[in-house]
Formats: sequence, C-alpha cells, structure tokens
Amino acid sequence: MTRILGIDPGSRLTGYAILEARGQRLKEVCHGCLSASASLPLSQRILRIADGVGRLVEEHLPEEAAVEDLFHAVNPRSALQLAHVRGAIVLELARRRVDLFTYAPRAVKKAVTGVGSADKEQVRAMVERLLGLRLEPSSLDVSDALAVAICHAHSRGGVAA
Amino acid sequence: MTRILGIDPGSRLTGYAILEARGQRLKEVCHGCLSASASLPLSQRILRIADGVGRLVEEHLPEEAAVEDLFHAVNPRSALQLAHVRGAIVLELARRRVDLFTYAPRAVKKAVTGVGSADKEQVRAMVERLLGLRLEPSSLDVSDALAVAICHAHSRGGVAA
Repeated sequence: MTRILGIDPGSRLTGYAILEARGQRLKEVCHGCLSASASLPLSQRILRIADGVGRLVEEHLPEEAAVEDLFHAVNPRSALQLAHVRGAIVLELARRRVDLFTYAPRAVKKAVTGVGSADKEQVRAMVERLLGLRLEPSSLDVSDALAVAICHAHSRGGVAA
Repeated sequence: MTRILGIDPGSRLTGYAILEARGQRLKEVCHGCLSASASLPLSQRILRIADGVGRLVEEHLPEEAAVEDLFHAVNPRSALQLAHVRGAIVLELARRRVDLFTYAPRAVKKAVTGVGSADKEQVRAMVERLLGLRLEPSSLDVSDALAVAICHAHSRGGVAA
C-alpha cells in the first residue's frame, strides 16, 4: 500500500488530493484546496501554502508526491509566481522526505482520459468515474490534483479501479 | 544596528552576504556562495540552498533580507528554475521571520554605482570600494549579493561608507 499526494500548485488556490494505491486498486483518502488570499504578499502566501502541505504530510503520511510540470503557455509573470510557489512546495516535501515526481500536463491528461489534449471537464469527469466520487463543478484545482496522483499511480504500476 | 542578508539566487550558485548597518556606516560581516551540484535533481538543489540560507540566518541573525527581482530577459526555462529556488528561499526566510525586501536589478545597480545600466564589473568595483574589501575576480554572485544588501541599506536610510 502506498499513499500518494497529488498537488496542483497555484499562487492563490493549491489543489491537493491523497490517494491510497493498493495493488490494482486506488482509493481516495481526502482532497481539498489550500487557499492564500491574493491580498497577502507572495512570501506570506508561500508560507501558508507550504505550511498547509506540511500539515497534510504530517496527518496523512504520503510516501510519494506528484506535481504537474509548469504549463509554459501561461503568461510569464504568472508562470514565475507559480514557480515560486512550486519551489516552496518542493522544499517542504524534500524536508519531509516525500519522494517527488513530476509529470507533463499532457501525460496527466492521457493517463486519466486516454487523450493528451483532453479539456479540464473531461479530466474531471474521468477522475470522478475512476475514483467513484463526485466533485463540486467548480473544483478544477482539486480535480487536477487527483488527476496527477492517478497519473503517478498508473505509472508506478497501480491501476485506478 | 541592523543586520542585512543579501542574496543572489541561482540554481547552481547562490551568492550571499551579510552587512551590518549602523547609522551611516556599513560593515561587511561575511560573504560567500552556496553551491548545489548541477547533477542533483532540482528538489535536492533547492533543499541544499534553503538549508544553507537557514544556517546563515541561525548563525548571523539578520533581521532583514534583500533579494533581486528575477531578471526576465533570461530564457524562460532558466527563469522558471530560478523562480523555484527563489520561492524556496522566500519560504525559508518567512519561516525564520526575516523580513524580505526585493529590488529590481536596475535599482540595485543604480544604488551601488549611480547608473542603472552598469555592468557586473562596475558593480563589483563599486561594492569593493564602498565596503573596503577585495573580491575574487570570478565571484560575481557574491558581488551581486553584496550589491543588493547595499541597495537595501541605502533605501532604509543607511549609507555605505
């Protein structure tokens, strides 16, 4: 049995999900969003998000974490801000000795839907079906976090069921 | 008396410097480079650099830190990697309650040399003169770290001497 933490980093909302992979089966343990008000300076947002990730690791003891590569098509300023958040999350996970794996967005979409160019709604629908759960229609950060965790579970031999 | 930590973040070499600002006078306390082998995965490089920054703060107890804004003209891949490192440093400083200030590269050059478009050699020469020290000709990371610390000391009312 392995616990996998999936993270979709954002400078305001960071989606997270914890899955349990047991042989061929995947079970959702929890999911949610870490939020940091846009009115806070970046350093305080980074601190809150990293503290939130730290608490998740303490509480749920995932052995492995999966994060999407940065999507290069967003505007450079947003990408740089996102990379700051991602760097802080990488540090938090390294400090807590959680092995980190990264996946290209296309690989995540392909792992979950079979199609690398799937849109966010398709990803959400397949995540719900694979894990047998219902997500809020608005919770795309969470669905991306679940998707990258599923992608990692697949690539390490597990299969969603 | 205030201790200022200046940092020039890099994904392989991160220059650092600690200055003491006492009224109108600036004194260099220490300077150097944190290095992380390019053969290490980014997460391990980030961990080493953040640990190094943490040790500096523990040992020298700076109250304030100054870091340059990211230079947007470098290629996008390098900029994203650098932003990861910078994000981890921001987290480390926020955790240790060191107030962080950022400055545009032009502002740093102007504060040190009087000219926003000064080149790295000019910055190094003025840093040496202002602080009365000699740097290795190759240590541009260190000279940039000293420069951003000087820039911060100026902008908070101190003057290099």
